[in-house]
Amino acid sequence: MAGSVFGTIFRIMTWGESHGKGVGVTIDGCPAGLSLCEEDIQQYLDRRKPGQSRFTTARQEGDQAELLSGVFEGKTTGTPIALIVRNQDHRSKDYKAIKDVYRPGHADYCYDAKYGLRDYRGGGRSSARETIGRVAAGAVAHKLLSHYGIQVDAYTKSIGEISVDPESFDLAKRDTNHLYMPDEEAAKRAAAFLDQMIREQDSAGGVVECLIRGVPAGIGEPVFDKLDASLARAVMSIGAVKGFEIGDGFAAARSRGSANNDEFFAASDGTIQKHTNHSGGILGGISDGGDIIFRAAFKPTPSISRPQQTANRNRENVEIAIRGRHDPVVVPRAVVVVEAMAALTVADHLLMAGAAKIGRPANRPAL
Amino acid sequence: MAGSVFGTIFRIMTWGESHGKGVGVTIDGCPAGLSLCEEDIQQYLDRRKPGQSRFTTARQEGDQAELLSGVFEGKTTGTPIALIVRNQDHRSKDYKAIKDVYRPGHADYCYDAKYGLRDYRGGGRSSARETIGRVAAGAVAHKLLSHYGIQVDAYTKSIGEISVDPESFDLAKRDTNHLYMPDEEAAKRAAAFLDQMIREQDSAGGVVECLIRGVPAGIGEPVFDKLDASLARAVMSIGAVKGFEIGDGFAAARSRGSANNDEFFAASDGTIQKHTNHSGGILGGISDGGDIIFRAAFKPTPSISRPQQTANRNRENVEIAIRGRHDPVVVPRAVVVVEAMAALTVADHLLMAGAAKIGRPANRPAL
Amino acid sequence: MAGSVFGTIFRIMTWGESHGKGVGVTIDGCPAGLSLCEEDIQQYLDRRKPGQSRFTTARQEGDQAELLSGVFEGKTTGTPIALIVRNQDHRSKDYKAIKDVYRPGHADYCYDAKYGLRDYRGGGRSSARETIGRVAAGAVAHKLLSHYGIQVDAYTKSIGEISVDPESFDLAKRDTNHLYMPDEEAAKRAAAFLDQMIREQDSAGGVVECLIRGVPAGIGEPVFDKLDASLARAVMSIGAVKGFEIGDGFAAARSRGSANNDEFFAASDGTIQKHTNHSGGILGGISDGGDIIFRAAFKPTPSISRPQQTANRNRENVEIAIRGRHDPVVVPRAVVVVEAMAALTVADHLLMAGAAKIGRPANRPAL
Amino acid sequence: MAGSVFGTIFRIMTWGESHGKGVGVTIDGCPAGLSLCEEDIQQYLDRRKPGQSRFTTARQEGDQAELLSGVFEGKTTGTPIALIVRNQDHRSKDYKAIKDVYRPGHADYCYDAKYGLRDYRGGGRSSARETIGRVAAGAVAHKLLSHYGIQVDAYTKSIGEISVDPESFDLAKRDTNHLYMPDEEAAKRAAAFLDQMIREQDSAGGVVECLIRGVPAGIGEPVFDKLDASLARAVMSIGAVKGFEIGDGFAAARSRGSANNDEFFAASDGTIQKHTNHSGGILGGISDGGDIIFRAAFKPTPSISRPQQTANRNRENVEIAIRGRHDPVVVPRAVVVVEAMAALTVADHLLMAGAAKIGRPANRPAL
Repeated sequence: MAGSVFGTIFRIMTWGESHGKGVGVTIDGCPAGLSLCEEDIQQYLDRRKPGQSRFTTARQEGDQAELLSGVFEGKTTGTPIALIVRNQDHRSKDYKAIKDVYRPGHADYCYDAKYGLRDYRGGGRSSARETIGRVAAGAVAHKLLSHYGIQVDAYTKSIGEISVDPESFDLAKRDTNHLYMPDEEAAKRAAAFLDQMIREQDSAGGVVECLIRGVPAGIGEPVFDKLDASLARAVMSIGAVKGFEIGDGFAAARSRGSANNDEFFAASDGTIQKHTNHSGGILGGISDGGDIIFRAAFKPTPSISRPQQTANRNRENVEIAIRGRHDPVVVPRAVVVVEAMAALTVADHLLMAGAAKIGRPANRPAL
Repeated sequence: MAGSVFGTIFRIMTWGESHGKGVGVTIDGCPAGLSLCEEDIQQYLDRRKPGQSRFTTARQEGDQAELLSGVFEGKTTGTPIALIVRNQDHRSKDYKAIKDVYRPGHADYCYDAKYGLRDYRGGGRSSARETIGRVAAGAVAHKLLSHYGIQVDAYTKSIGEISVDPESFDLAKRDTNHLYMPDEEAAKRAAAFLDQMIREQDSAGGVVECLIRGVPAGIGEPVFDKLDASLARAVMSIGAVKGFEIGDGFAAARSRGSANNDEFFAASDGTIQKHTNHSGGILGGISDGGDIIFRAAFKPTPSISRPQQTANRNRENVEIAIRGRHDPVVVPRAVVVVEAMAALTVADHLLMAGAAKIGRPANRPAL
Repeated sequence: MAGSVFGTIFRIMTWGESHGKGVGVTIDGCPAGLSLCEEDIQQYLDRRKPGQSRFTTARQEGDQAELLSGVFEGKTTGTPIALIVRNQDHRSKDYKAIKDVYRPGHADYCYDAKYGLRDYRGGGRSSARETIGRVAAGAVAHKLLSHYGIQVDAYTKSIGEISVDPESFDLAKRDTNHLYMPDEEAAKRAAAFLDQMIREQDSAGGVVECLIRGVPAGIGEPVFDKLDASLARAVMSIGAVKGFEIGDGFAAARSRGSANNDEFFAASDGTIQKHTNHSGGILGGISDGGDIIFRAAFKPTPSISRPQQTANRNRENVEIAIRGRHDPVVVPRAVVVVEAMAALTVADHLLMAGAAKIGRPANRPAL
Repeated sequence: MAGSVFGTIFRIMTWGESHGKGVGVTIDGCPAGLSLCEEDIQQYLDRRKPGQSRFTTARQEGDQAELLSGVFEGKTTGTPIALIVRNQDHRSKDYKAIKDVYRPGHADYCYDAKYGLRDYRGGGRSSARETIGRVAAGAVAHKLLSHYGIQVDAYTKSIGEISVDPESFDLAKRDTNHLYMPDEEAAKRAAAFLDQMIREQDSAGGVVECLIRGVPAGIGEPVFDKLDASLARAVMSIGAVKGFEIGDGFAAARSRGSANNDEFFAASDGTIQKHTNHSGGILGGISDGGDIIFRAAFKPTPSISRPQQTANRNRENVEIAIRGRHDPVVVPRAVVVVEAMAALTVADHLLMAGAAKIGRPANRPAL
């Protein structure tokens, strides 16, 4: 197993470390006939690229995706789509100092305990660079979903204590600021807060919210493979995520049934709709036709330059001050990663849903 | 797929509906040599049984588990362990009235959209009765984990706005009250609140917290099968759960790196430990040797007897008042279900972890 | 894992031992809307039942299937279908004598080596009784396939050296004799041969052939999940099977390309067809629209009453003469098991095939 | 799904087409701590490389493997191992002529029926070039198995009617001839036969045999994941394989129990052994400690230059004469592919076997 495979029908395997030759992903199970080119993938990778603002690491990476297989004459062929991004800028020397030291808040000690050794260069496999494979595969999932009229959009909901004001929320404003907040005023205050964090050699956390529109009712499997359970697993698998909630989430635990239930109504066009959306678009693990909306809590970046106490491989207590290039907050660059995981999850469930009931033969080719 | 399978090595499949002949589970992959009897399972089923207090449905079910296979001379044989609980008390007539009506907050409409038909008796497969299979399999997982020194305990953290007081927290007090709160004073206030809910024909939500002790460092797979991602999926797959968080969870999003990082130290016994546990026992998806602690948010019971507006299969807008037997809160009976899902998840990861590094041959029998 | 799960979308888990409380299977992923009743399953179980002729064990088992879940008002609901068959006639005392002895040709020693213990009563999980779960699930798969115009038929091709004469082959004659041979003359000679085997306290092997009609072109996945590879795994997983071949099979290895290639032609109805069928209906792992035809080689029943040399758990060399009820050949009762495994395999691939190319949304419910 | 994933714990995903940018494989689940370098992989790739004799296609490919991830300081880290081989020599123009024509014996028509389009250049994904990923991953599996004392060796058993003489069998002679036959005299006769096939614009099939030594008793899962069933699926998934048999295989179907049973004995060293090996080293799906031995039947190369009748995409009947570079027999180059699939299968089962029984904690790190 070893954890680098995701999905049942639309299935991906990612690979690569922070300071190895590159990172990549292979997708098996993308349906044939979808238009796809490198640019479709590159536009998503560009959104997670480092070096875009003073709040993201200065590491210079082109992060150019090369499409190696699975596309012929501009269309997917139904066979595996391999994507690779070569690493360009690896200053491994930065990491020699922490070779034997367990950085607080990082997985260094856990990897050592699990594997008996670890690639100490930039976190190795546990580096945020691992998410390039997710984003590249997610781009293909987005393309597939858009064919079926489904749109996935994530954005920064809050950084530290500074949240988007629901009154000012405007998704169209998300890309006007480096923090990907759909509220320009909140973005300015968050930027000031992050400048303070940098001065204080500290870091901040935040919340990403994700909106999925266009999912028809009936997607998701009962019991263990509920659509929201799958989304939770997908999003919690992103490094630094410590919480997940859908619809009203933890607030629902303090609510009452009469307030939390969404009443249905038959609309004039013959569809079943809901007056409210406390459920976040999923009931009993299956989409209810409403917008799907969920949130992910990200912890503060563990790499901070102020001194910390810790231990090393030799069981000695030592002090560490982490040098190198680190974002004071991971949230802005994680937005596109959350989108990717949501898109991969919904794409996989959408393809699975075709087998839910009998009807015309599943695949009686017209040939 | 269809969602009723959980786990990779320690793998279960559950089955059964609220008003069918029974519910059950089969476990494939439980290691041979574990002592197991029906009583090991029954004690967990008894904790989720209805009819234990005025806050749980009056439905009378013996819920007696029958062990059908996989155990010989008191020990597991390594082959599938099948467990069945017969349904006894099914008053299907209760549900005729809602046969064609989509209950707010329930999955009725979603099942219809997905399958083109549904078992309308008590929610069918989406009934909370489905959790019997989880609890029965979880009991076996608990037995396996205890062999390795691992203990899983969940409890009610809050009901509505009433929370356990951290100062009064005493796990030993959990089973002294029907709400499974480890704080007798909070339990009394919560009981009063629930009485009010019953009077107001309404319902409440709440939070379950789970503590897992004894997990060695190094359990969990990187990237997509992180231990916390697996726990999130497992717990979010329980009906009515709307949120999951580990360690400091959503509060971590408002914290700072300097406060949120847990500093390591080398203890005098040669082990690596942490001064604090903001991480909740997992870093980078792999256990760090500390206690694992997570919370799940449950929404209020959607079945309330006060009238609600909704729609039916014929696309007519109708009013519904749900009769029958319903808990004003699902949390107390869900405690043992959360424990079960946690135990199943950790057991599966523990067995997987044996393949992480080379060493002595994985299975060189002594015979 | 532990091996008792089969399939990806149409997924089953079987359980049960020869002398436990019963055997059974749960099916997860059968599409909703299929008509199904116990009689659909019973008719297949009756074909594998013991005690039907002097060549099958005299063990008296009703082998009545009970349908426990997943069907409502005569239709599958899309949720798990649980089936159980209680064991009735277990004379465990028959097996005390071989409790510590490793029977030649059986898995006794292998189970002991793997698990450190074994259920010695009648082979436990390795008993042919395990196939009841396969046949019961296979019956559901047959029902699903027939909805799509697919028919699976197996028959005895040979017993020992006695084969069906291709000139006399008549599938309609298969059920006229207890050996399930579609050639009455061959069946008579095989019966005489088996009488001889009984007299000589010996046993025979044989070959089962399976014909699958109506599979459209395009079913099967490339590379590792080829339809023929999946069939091979499915059929080789039946106890006592030692070989599998499709189309011309091993004879193809002695043929030439010019003779072995099936030439295509465009038929007057616009379909692509083949003049011959050396391929056995599958090319590159994907169905080519022709009949699928494969064969399975069964070894002679290992339980024979003549004395054999062997060893026991205490590492002593001993002599054994197996008492009890044993068929002189397993082939006739295995015919329906081969059919079941073929049906399960094709059903799973058929459901998977719906995701091969983009088109109308996979599941845009009409509701 | 889509078929390009193999294995449960030691899991691989392959990708790539004949005339795309390259082919490759990623391995997830290789235990940490194994010494590994590119040369370990290259030596196996060199054995399947084209252009080595007059019986293999003249296509010139360096087939140099590049190791992209998962190895640090010469050891596997437990994270995914990505391997890529760039395609160098693609004369796509060779294939324009057959763009719309369905070649007899190839999967052209089946891919079109399944996907609605196909990469017609050299068979695309269905090309034998796809096996590079298998061989590269197999090389890592071989390295892992050798750590546990397990050795996998395949060889050409027959080409057309010409078989290795059991009297002359000498595994050490296998690599002395381009046909990989462990009998130099048979190799000479086979070479003459293949020259004849080339003159006659025809092709031949053959049989590959594989010997696996050193597998301890107890490896393999019961019921559906029997070790021999897994091997059958693995080997039947290689293009052109039409049959699989283990031990005495189809001959066992004509044998008797008294002759086919392998009697056990307790050896003086306290181990349980068998006097004979009709079983081929597996009983009840679980290794019995003896050598595992199986055979695979390969059909004749379907690409022959003599004219054949067929149909095209436009439903026209046409004649085709296949130009380009094609082996008169695939068997010699397939030997290393069979070895790879066997090694991958045994490695995965070996890692799985560690979870069969309880004992010391599966992973209690010494840290």
